Amino acid sequence: MTASTLFEEIKRKKTFLCVGLDTELSKIPPHLLGEDFPLFAFNRNIIDATHDLVIAYKPNLAFYECLGTPGWQQFEMTVHYIRQNYPEILIIADAKRGDIGNTAAKYAETFFQTLSCDAVTVAPYMGSDSVRPFLGFEGKWVILLALTSNPGADDFQMLPTGIQERLFESVLSKSQQWGTPDNMMYVVGATRAAMLVKVRALVPDHFLLIPGVGAQGGDLNDVAAYGCNDRCGLIVNSSRAILYADQSPRFAEVAREKAREVQQAMHAILVSRSLV
Amino acid sequence: MTASTLFEEIKRKKTFLCVGLDTELSKIPPHLLGEDFPLFAFNRNIIDATHDLVIAYKPNLAFYECLGTPGWQQFEMTVHYIRQNYPEILIIADAKRGDIGNTAAKYAETFFQTLSCDAVTVAPYMGSDSVRPFLGFEGKWVILLALTSNPGADDFQMLPTGIQERLFESVLSKSQQWGTPDNMMYVVGATRAAMLVKVRALVPDHFLLIPGVGAQGGDLNDVAAYGCNDRCGLIVNSSRAILYADQSPRFAEVAREKAREVQQAMHAILVSRSLV
Repeated sequence: MTASTLFEEIKRKKTFLCVGLDTELSKIPPHLLGEDFPLFAFNRNIIDATHDLVIAYKPNLAFYECLGTPGWQQFEMTVHYIRQNYPEILIIADAKRGDIGNTAAKYAETFFQTLSCDAVTVAPYMGSDSVRPFLGFEGKWVILLALTSNPGADDFQMLPTGIQERLFESVLSKSQQWGTPDNMMYVVGATRAAMLVKVRALVPDHFLLIPGVGAQGGDLNDVAAYGCNDRCGLIVNSSRAILYADQSPRFAEVAREKAREVQQAMHAILVSRSLV
Repeated sequence: MTASTLFEEIKRKKTFLCVGLDTELSKIPPHLLGEDFPLFAFNRNIIDATHDLVIAYKPNLAFYECLGTPGWQQFEMTVHYIRQNYPEILIIADAKRGDIGNTAAKYAETFFQTLSCDAVTVAPYMGSDSVRPFLGFEGKWVILLALTSNPGADDFQMLPTGIQERLFESVLSKSQQWGTPDNMMYVVGATRAAMLVKVRALVPDHFLLIPGVGAQGGDLNDVAAYGCNDRCGLIVNSSRAILYADQSPRFAEVAREKAREVQQAMHAILVSRSLV
């Protein structure tokens, strides 16, 4: 998928919502626990209930790996289900991988070939040769961690690395030598909306994946005010606020209502910016 | 396992070798490809042939994940096999994970509880709350990326973050507020042996995991000269040079010979430093 195709989808569906599939046995409705594949059963219901309100799903690998092999299997089942039933939806493997060249190539093979994900989140600490192996797949994306939404982001990402430059700004600058707005996006935490001004000064054209709206405290209107560009340029994630709004057999319906509220707010933003 | 226990094992076995289980279908002997679990069959043979020459095994997750669910299953089988047959050997999950608090907690659960690994490699970019969730497990270790052996390490790890301080030095300094020499080690690339002086100035007591001896070009004697401390303080990894020395049905025997050469060099170093 190119950036233009993604923008067309945003205009067609009037949303830039990503639902994060941080699916946990301890949080899904109890009636699903008897299923053979409870994480997948939950995800399938959530996906069927929300697919027309989102442009992306973002399964977070940690929540599957912690169940071992059956968890990994349900991650795969989820990816295949989305790919087969809703081929237009971006699948982001939230894996935050980062390793040297031949290992990074294996991770790229994992997510782009063994599975059919469209994008994978990558950590920048190991530099160019840990990122470039992900960039050679047509239509696939690296989403590079730039400025994250957690308190620990201050430990290193905010360190000065030059006059008027912090580490996350070095990551944004340097990585533009590796990828383009058609194969690279950046993670920017929504709890730092004012920082989006600095981010947009460095990467005006790239899509940004914004986690942290909802449970993590970010404000959608702030994010849009500072982060939107002329192709929207935003994918805003919400996980827990949508997934776990209800614990009854009606959970998917309630999740849809929550996603619908966010989608309507996004539609209003797109209208106000004359993007739809 | 505590640092003292690890040092006792080093003295008992006269080695500080870690064999990296970067096991690939395209590189293992062809006669194993007909097995139901070829990666595991290869690993089991390598492990049985080398267990008395090593203190650690380091399966690299990328090489298992790229096969999808069957790959993850063979990673688990490998960990269980080591744990059951050679309980004294440190199992390092080379996963380079790094994510915010609740996700990091899931990764810790994955490697320390669902599986029974002793250590996991962690990327520092997201800061304290991405590392601390791994530190609450008795006898378990975080191995934090500090200075890696790949060319891309120059992109960010070597950036100045203060007067006479580079990013990898900030990682070493800051992270000592989070862990101790009994639950934290650091990855330091062996291709940068001279940098070990700077590392040891900041973390004199911690164990260091040194990848990159062998195929990646590091020199064992340099590493020992600059990196050894009074409990040895080193775990030196070799992967391809041992695993893939031979493609015949004798592969495990040849791998043992290669591992034995490294172990003997390590024994000589331990003797020369009066550690055994």
